[in-house]
Amino acid sequence: MPTQFDPPSGTRDFLAADVEQREEAFAVIRSVFTRYGFEPLQTPAFERLSVLLGKYGEDGDKLVFKILRRGEHEASGEADLALRYDLTVPLARVAAAYGSQLPTPYKRYAIAPVWRADRPGQGRFREFVQCDLDTLGSPSVLADAEALCAQHDALAALGLPEFSIQLNSRRVLSGLLEAFAVPEALGAGVLITLDKLDKLAPGDVISELEGRGLAQDAAAKLVAVMTAPDAVDQVRAALKTLEQGAAGLDEVDSVLSLVALQIPPGRIAFTPRLVRGLSYYTGPIWEVVAPGVPGSGGPDTPATGSSLGVERILPLLPRSGAAERGRLDVAVTVMAEEFARQAFDMAATARAAGLRSSIYLGESAKLGRQLRWASVQGARWCLIYGSAEDEAGTVTVRDMHSGEQTAVPVGELGDYLTRAAG
Amino acid sequence: MPTQFDPPSGTRDFLAADVEQREEAFAVIRSVFTRYGFEPLQTPAFERLSVLLGKYGEDGDKLVFKILRRGEHEASGEADLALRYDLTVPLARVAAAYGSQLPTPYKRYAIAPVWRADRPGQGRFREFVQCDLDTLGSPSVLADAEALCAQHDALAALGLPEFSIQLNSRRVLSGLLEAFAVPEALGAGVLITLDKLDKLAPGDVISELEGRGLAQDAAAKLVAVMTAPDAVDQVRAALKTLEQGAAGLDEVDSVLSLVALQIPPGRIAFTPRLVRGLSYYTGPIWEVVAPGVPGSGGPDTPATGSSLGVERILPLLPRSGAAERGRLDVAVTVMAEEFARQAFDMAATARAAGLRSSIYLGESAKLGRQLRWASVQGARWCLIYGSAEDEAGTVTVRDMHSGEQTAVPVGELGDYLTRAAG
Repeated sequence: MPTQFDPPSGTRDFLAADVEQREEAFAVIRSVFTRYGFEPLQTPAFERLSVLLGKYGEDGDKLVFKILRRGEHEASGEADLALRYDLTVPLARVAAAYGSQLPTPYKRYAIAPVWRADRPGQGRFREFVQCDLDTLGSPSVLADAEALCAQHDALAALGLPEFSIQLNSRRVLSGLLEAFAVPEALGAGVLITLDKLDKLAPGDVISELEGRGLAQDAAAKLVAVMTAPDAVDQVRAALKTLEQGAAGLDEVDSVLSLVALQIPPGRIAFTPRLVRGLSYYTGPIWEVVAPGVPGSGGPDTPATGSSLGVERILPLLPRSGAAERGRLDVAVTVMAEEFARQAFDMAATARAAGLRSSIYLGESAKLGRQLRWASVQGARWCLIYGSAEDEAGTVTVRDMHSGEQTAVPVGELGDYLTRAAG
Repeated sequence: MPTQFDPPSGTRDFLAADVEQREEAFAVIRSVFTRYGFEPLQTPAFERLSVLLGKYGEDGDKLVFKILRRGEHEASGEADLALRYDLTVPLARVAAAYGSQLPTPYKRYAIAPVWRADRPGQGRFREFVQCDLDTLGSPSVLADAEALCAQHDALAALGLPEFSIQLNSRRVLSGLLEAFAVPEALGAGVLITLDKLDKLAPGDVISELEGRGLAQDAAAKLVAVMTAPDAVDQVRAALKTLEQGAAGLDEVDSVLSLVALQIPPGRIAFTPRLVRGLSYYTGPIWEVVAPGVPGSGGPDTPATGSSLGVERILPLLPRSGAAERGRLDVAVTVMAEEFARQAFDMAATARAAGLRSSIYLGESAKLGRQLRWASVQGARWCLIYGSAEDEAGTVTVRDMHSGEQTAVPVGELGDYLTRAAG
């Protein structure tokens, strides 16, 4: 049951372990993108409403979170701003605004949340992070191949256990429509339906194609070719004599050849029926498929065109070390108020030795209670300083793994910890 | 003149150099906070409207960006969500939602944008990042001292050239009101006016105090004490016999004593007239003052209570190395389309050697043009592979600093670059 203290529907609070796992993953991705010479771009969370509307189709527009005008205009009930729906439209605005101040070509990445008022569901959120990679100002297939390799490397570096890349080209799809004599007016709809071959039985896809106005035999033949074991060969044969089709095949083959040394064979395949991402891109299109990642229907797929659907990948990754590493290296007890100052200074000493350290801030003066806190914090050592230690001028360093305790002269604590951590 | 392509009023686009400087600063802050055992928390960009409203006073509520309801409810013109205005209210919600699942005490940091529909101005933005540090569930002054040291260390680690910390306590302020017989009903207003002693002439402050209903002689005396060279001594003398006042002085002295080893003397001082941040905090309050940072009137001050106003600090920091480091280590020319594949592979070789590398994606086949690109990218080396190299089985490695060129056998490129980057 959601309570008044839950985050808004479709959004999440991330406590420490989750933040750390996510940030580690983003750092890995950033590092790979940087190695490819992509540069970061950050844009505001919201854009003028006029910048966003009309870019995502009627259905997309409905999912935009709109921001009410303010002050005297609030009562109008009108919106003038909206939360960004993706990272592509803000990029287009930046390209228009900065023009020649940007490098040519402009290779940018962006890792940032976007917001969509979608119905929240299994793995589908209203606030989720996208990782985008785009090259503006280069018509070269090299740019696509580079983006593809960068995404592949990012997924590999994240440790995604199993994944493969489906590659296609918009021109192949145009060629297919021509080869199967699909009337131009039906083209877009036919492709949208073909895209469902992953989820629907071939018969259902045929029915849907007919519903869209395609002749029964054309629909049946198209589906038969696309689902045949040798679909790729059949498509190649059908397309090679057509202008668009042949250009599409060339494009796909160029990409396959360029990435051959960087993407292991078997991890990328020409997939003529891949349609997704179509609306944005004009050249090669691709999608990453990974077991456990639903193919579609969500706010983003693992990688379509230049977008890495990191939210769907994160749950598949091996749990990182950060969560298990504990919060502290050195936990410092406060055995009595009169020793608080010494405890405070010892924590500083531990930090100066490069260790994460904090004093006990709870209200109990009991050692057992404070040791429990140290243990929950994952501390490697716990420092104990009470009357006995105060008299002796030492601090008791407890090894939280072995339970062994050592009396260390206060003045030597820093050296001791440095050595122990060594 | 703002154009339709500018980001919305009060917000900013951050191109690469700015993103890098900002992210480096945030990483430094994160690292210091982590060393103190604070753990990260991330909450959604928006909250339910009911969670936010009523928390910031009437003036604050007006600055909240409200999000219009969606679907069939959009026409109502009503809002149900709002962008977070600070990181404190979301923290309170999380504490209520997760309760005992959180560590006790709960030490969390958050570094994230907040949004306020303030009038944009000099250094004042509608979207800006806050860095917050809070300890929930510890009434101990140790927690305040720890947060103060963590903020100090963060500012020092950032390289902020000159700054000092003004320290006060809410109880000192209560004691002051008592000592100067300020009627209880006038208390809050008197403190707000006193806070203006930084900006207004003493006479103007006295007038404003009178305007608030304070007797002329009381107002004059109060201002005289607060602006005297020995204000601290006078306040100590006036407060030490009062219950709240004495407790406040104790609190201030405890903090000063605790931090003495960690914050250099002269960098922190008891400042009885410091009022800011009052409304949130019940114990010690503090603020960082740095030359070049306007004291107030902005969306955040450098550090008030537990919030680091990082946006005001960033412009003061020495420009980091990242921006000058260049985007690429190895720029790879594409001298002709037939050699694109080799260029592509050489860039991969450079990356495998741990270097940032990219091929030329522009449209020119001219070497001069491509060398210019390599130079703009800040590349240390540029690889040239044309017909001559193809015949010789070598690649020309140009040192972009010296202009020296070396023919390296293609198979040895990785080793060569690894050695050169040594």
